[in-house]
Amino acid sequence: MAGNSFGSLFRITTWGESHGQGVGVVIDGCPAGLSLRVSDIQHELNRRRPGQSKVTTPRNEQDSVQILSGVFENKTTGTPISLMVMNADQHSRDYGELVTKYRPSHADYTYDAKYGFRDHRGGGRASARETIGRVAAAAIAKKYLFRKNKIEVIAYVKQIHTLKAEVDPKTVTQQQIESNLVRCPDAAMAEKMITRIENAKTAGDSLGGIVECVIRHVPAGIGSPVFDKLEARLAHAMLSLPATKGFEIGSGFAATLMKGSEHNDDMRMRDGKMVTTTNHSGGVVGGISNGMDIIFRVAFKPTATIFKKQNTIDAAGQNTTLQMSGRHDACVLPRAVHIVEAMAALVVMDEYLLQKTVR
Amino acid sequence: MAGNSFGSLFRITTWGESHGQGVGVVIDGCPAGLSLRVSDIQHELNRRRPGQSKVTTPRNEQDSVQILSGVFENKTTGTPISLMVMNADQHSRDYGELVTKYRPSHADYTYDAKYGFRDHRGGGRASARETIGRVAAAAIAKKYLFRKNKIEVIAYVKQIHTLKAEVDPKTVTQQQIESNLVRCPDAAMAEKMITRIENAKTAGDSLGGIVECVIRHVPAGIGSPVFDKLEARLAHAMLSLPATKGFEIGSGFAATLMKGSEHNDDMRMRDGKMVTTTNHSGGVVGGISNGMDIIFRVAFKPTATIFKKQNTIDAAGQNTTLQMSGRHDACVLPRAVHIVEAMAALVVMDEYLLQKTVR
Amino acid sequence: MAGNSFGSLFRITTWGESHGQGVGVVIDGCPAGLSLRVSDIQHELNRRRPGQSKVTTPRNEQDSVQILSGVFENKTTGTPISLMVMNADQHSRDYGELVTKYRPSHADYTYDAKYGFRDHRGGGRASARETIGRVAAAAIAKKYLFRKNKIEVIAYVKQIHTLKAEVDPKTVTQQQIESNLVRCPDAAMAEKMITRIENAKTAGDSLGGIVECVIRHVPAGIGSPVFDKLEARLAHAMLSLPATKGFEIGSGFAATLMKGSEHNDDMRMRDGKMVTTTNHSGGVVGGISNGMDIIFRVAFKPTATIFKKQNTIDAAGQNTTLQMSGRHDACVLPRAVHIVEAMAALVVMDEYLLQKTVR
Amino acid sequence: MAGNSFGSLFRITTWGESHGQGVGVVIDGCPAGLSLRVSDIQHELNRRRPGQSKVTTPRNEQDSVQILSGVFENKTTGTPISLMVMNADQHSRDYGELVTKYRPSHADYTYDAKYGFRDHRGGGRASARETIGRVAAAAIAKKYLFRKNKIEVIAYVKQIHTLKAEVDPKTVTQQQIESNLVRCPDAAMAEKMITRIENAKTAGDSLGGIVECVIRHVPAGIGSPVFDKLEARLAHAMLSLPATKGFEIGSGFAATLMKGSEHNDDMRMRDGKMVTTTNHSGGVVGGISNGMDIIFRVAFKPTATIFKKQNTIDAAGQNTTLQMSGRHDACVLPRAVHIVEAMAALVVMDEYLLQKTVR
Repeated sequence: MAGNSFGSLFRITTWGESHGQGVGVVIDGCPAGLSLRVSDIQHELNRRRPGQSKVTTPRNEQDSVQILSGVFENKTTGTPISLMVMNADQHSRDYGELVTKYRPSHADYTYDAKYGFRDHRGGGRASARETIGRVAAAAIAKKYLFRKNKIEVIAYVKQIHTLKAEVDPKTVTQQQIESNLVRCPDAAMAEKMITRIENAKTAGDSLGGIVECVIRHVPAGIGSPVFDKLEARLAHAMLSLPATKGFEIGSGFAATLMKGSEHNDDMRMRDGKMVTTTNHSGGVVGGISNGMDIIFRVAFKPTATIFKKQNTIDAAGQNTTLQMSGRHDACVLPRAVHIVEAMAALVVMDEYLLQKTVR
Repeated sequence: MAGNSFGSLFRITTWGESHGQGVGVVIDGCPAGLSLRVSDIQHELNRRRPGQSKVTTPRNEQDSVQILSGVFENKTTGTPISLMVMNADQHSRDYGELVTKYRPSHADYTYDAKYGFRDHRGGGRASARETIGRVAAAAIAKKYLFRKNKIEVIAYVKQIHTLKAEVDPKTVTQQQIESNLVRCPDAAMAEKMITRIENAKTAGDSLGGIVECVIRHVPAGIGSPVFDKLEARLAHAMLSLPATKGFEIGSGFAATLMKGSEHNDDMRMRDGKMVTTTNHSGGVVGGISNGMDIIFRVAFKPTATIFKKQNTIDAAGQNTTLQMSGRHDACVLPRAVHIVEAMAALVVMDEYLLQKTVR
Repeated sequence: MAGNSFGSLFRITTWGESHGQGVGVVIDGCPAGLSLRVSDIQHELNRRRPGQSKVTTPRNEQDSVQILSGVFENKTTGTPISLMVMNADQHSRDYGELVTKYRPSHADYTYDAKYGFRDHRGGGRASARETIGRVAAAAIAKKYLFRKNKIEVIAYVKQIHTLKAEVDPKTVTQQQIESNLVRCPDAAMAEKMITRIENAKTAGDSLGGIVECVIRHVPAGIGSPVFDKLEARLAHAMLSLPATKGFEIGSGFAATLMKGSEHNDDMRMRDGKMVTTTNHSGGVVGGISNGMDIIFRVAFKPTATIFKKQNTIDAAGQNTTLQMSGRHDACVLPRAVHIVEAMAALVVMDEYLLQKTVR
Repeated sequence: MAGNSFGSLFRITTWGESHGQGVGVVIDGCPAGLSLRVSDIQHELNRRRPGQSKVTTPRNEQDSVQILSGVFENKTTGTPISLMVMNADQHSRDYGELVTKYRPSHADYTYDAKYGFRDHRGGGRASARETIGRVAAAAIAKKYLFRKNKIEVIAYVKQIHTLKAEVDPKTVTQQQIESNLVRCPDAAMAEKMITRIENAKTAGDSLGGIVECVIRHVPAGIGSPVFDKLEARLAHAMLSLPATKGFEIGSGFAATLMKGSEHNDDMRMRDGKMVTTTNHSGGVVGGISNGMDIIFRVAFKPTATIFKKQNTIDAAGQNTTLQMSGRHDACVLPRAVHIVEAMAALVVMDEYLLQKTVR
């Protein structure tokens, strides 16, 4: 209701700020009897760990997850699973003028407008650090979905700034994605992307781009018309991520340039199963999965943190300028890949469980 | 939970199929004391009425709305408001091969996959007729929002097929939009669009496009991080509409081609109020409105109903072909305009009420 | 959220006032494929129909239910089921002093306090007529539960005023209950109850009592700790009925007079199934059904409508007196029996579906 | 949805088992700007701390609460508040035959029936230790309600076994309640209760009783008909507590023995405010508060843990006997007092916030 829960049957509630005690998540509705160890979750968190390279954020934390409840003798019990990652970096430093000056295109002004004041330390609740709970919870959903139906969720960097990768979503593998720093499976383009990010970083500037995601082996029948269509919930999930500006599924915005006769996906039987010969639908028709790969893309704006002088106002309502300095994350996309996967897994998990009650 | 409700504090639940008894909506949580007459709702339904022109659907129904509850002496009582529109066209006709053959890129196959069978008459629940309840409910939300804060929601056709209109969202008026058949405020482009749609219709083909929407006078502070960010809920709302393939807010996908120094919106004080000198954010930062116009776009695919021979399968799992005939809606965008407005109003209404509880 | 919906997976939303256009309910989440005809629902409504006898309310309406959506070729489709009963008695009569004077122990004053004003015609939303939608929706739940697991829900009048019936919940049948006007399976006591009610009616007074309910064949494992324990949801359901003042399950308040050694239910195996030799638990332990009969009781206060002069205030905040006249329902218990059954069925239905997602 | 959350606008989600890492709660929707320190919450936890006396449980834990998020510079920020109490007693001891034998009238059998297996250590999730999160969250609600409207929630032991206290709910104070070990404000009866509990303890037996609760200064207008009537939500809240068997509000079950002319509460103006001369309604009419004291009672069964030989079955489905030994809590009522207060505060808090959106 107040915005910090997602899902119904597999419902997660996240908590925590950038520089508070820690961040965490409570999962209510995880089916009982799933084999689960800390390492299953830690593995996903390690993938997102910042500080791995010069293209990502300098914050170097261990992010060790603890399972506080809901698991007994390495199996889920059906009771709430509480996961927590303590913040290593809790010492209050001097935030200087950031206490009173609003950073342009950051959530400083809007949090003050909503709540009357805010935790100004490192972005507070609006920090990308909040997404750790999502990734941790999704590690469990991913494991369940793979065990039940070999469902896999794979995201990768499709575009950074003007650089567009060639990737075949049908065949791309996790291994290809993790093989380079930007998590782009087009190795040649990945090199160019890295250079582009380094240049932006040097210039104190930042870049955005597109993450593409494919979900395989979702059976036909998943998704809840009319308001909780699968694409609607995916769009919700993706636009709930920091710095996102757009979502499209299948043909997406390009569909607007096609005629119906070009866009409709012919249906055929193959090996006793319905397939479409094209996949402009992106695996979802009328809000329900049709058994084909689900494919969507998410647009991320360039990071709002830049090291150039900007016009802004302060909390007292005065015009002023702001010049930030330090180290920054010139492009969040390499890390955003895992959060996109996480949110997609949470949506599919919830609707997968719901489908058990429909017939 | 099962997908037919939207919203929390202003919660709507829609019901009805294309060729059943009727369609309707129950609204739970409408504030008490709002002046409301049938004409307030009928006015919005009349705007969406099909059959007004040769560019829209031939179905010519009156769509007279009834208020069944929740209003007494022309004021809302705070109890559930039940609205109903009877279907004039209920007679069961012969659906012929459509009973067994799946229409490509329609929801026929997926509804069968989900529920085991379906009401095959005219699209059943997946018909656009389902959206009448949304528009009716949103008429009330619109009235409330305008009364409270002069909030207005205005949508228009921005693009049809390759034809892109020039529109200034800051100044566009409802009157300009309603002045032509395609509801595109760029009069010159509107003429071309009409011709393009007529040609598609003649060819038995169909077209898609983009609807743009601007929401004015939303106060800063509306929206619920982290999962129910305003843009996330808008994306959810828009992708819950039939035939939508994408959503973007503010700079949208174009943001990916900009640098942070180009994209960040400078903040200034003007007349004692914060304004941004650009609006790449689209009126929302960190999931919360910043007081600027909220601007977003929705991509609609070309209508799936076309009159060309297509490859498909039947319910028995056999390859076959399908050749539909009759009259059809070659482009839904002129009517989609009102549904986009409706869903946007519902999101803002819900979060507007929620904000009363935050401080 | 705003109070007019009940349940999650089998979610009902009711609407309607006593003297508006009608009353109704939308059910979202009914499993697809259940055989359903109007007569299945009408049958339950007929049982509750007032005007059947001199002990119940004089209002003589047909209460013909219509199925407006969600059913195709006599099977549920999985889409929302909209049910409606038009009000025959809609003509606005002169409500006289009831427009301004608050009836003691009726909801007149509190509705005004909450919403600022109210529909004063015949109790408006607070009328018992509101429960028609619940009974109609529950008819579907009952059918499903019986089909799936022979689950049956049986309620009866256990006590009216000081008259307490002897009933064995293990063996009582629907037929016994419907065999007399007060729906008390203890035939001898039923006669006394009828006389007692008639006397109260003649005196312009009213009586309360206790309804007992038994639910048979609920499998072990139903109910959701810790907040949605089965007894918690049953208590919620029962106290949501007009005129209820108390709920108890199994041993109930009498448990407070027992020692643990007397109260604990011994467990034994019988025919390969766990049974308890006593059933002080009332079929639920720790919030979860244990496979034994679920037994609970609901206390109803005497009806607030009486024909004696009472002290009250008016809307202008002045002390005054009120003397109502006309015909009235001196005891609601004979009709309350069906509403208790209905709410119990809705709770069990919801938790029964939920259990499909737990393992 | 899965049962571990309570409330909508002030929504709590609890987690944790008796002998896991700890127990905790996440609160979503706490209004921003409320002054809050750890001591505000610790104070409430200390009241419930076991081990204070020979009449309560021997487990002697510190139960130190930590605030992990949602508070900055001693004020709530409007973001989720995560509270945690680590379990001191986490070492796995040998649970012996309790691993395979089901304790009668405990939730052992039913948890296995629901989830397929369970955390058998000390009751796991079904332990009363789970309620710590509720009490911690309610400490915040209590503070808010008192600050806003001087709303106070006071519960006390009304009856233990056959011993009934005389207490005037209008005037009883927190101080009187905390003045003795059983938290019964009737000092003479408290002495007898203590003796009765000691005797039961010596005999290896247990006792139940009744907790009464009064809520003062709730303004008229709180509560959401028709399903979320204030008494319905209170009943839900109370029956969600371990060991509860019944709930009644105002006149409760005794109402069944009264006539309408005796039961109706006359209304009068006093000091410009509506009052009723009696309070059989218990402060709620038609599901909405009327401004009078809200008074209700909760029945607790005798604790299921007793040290006498009992008939039971084991997980393999064999008849067997069980003789437990050790130390036990012969009567939970003195501690239940705080949990009843906590749940009542959570209900009122949620509906108090909701009322802001109704007009």
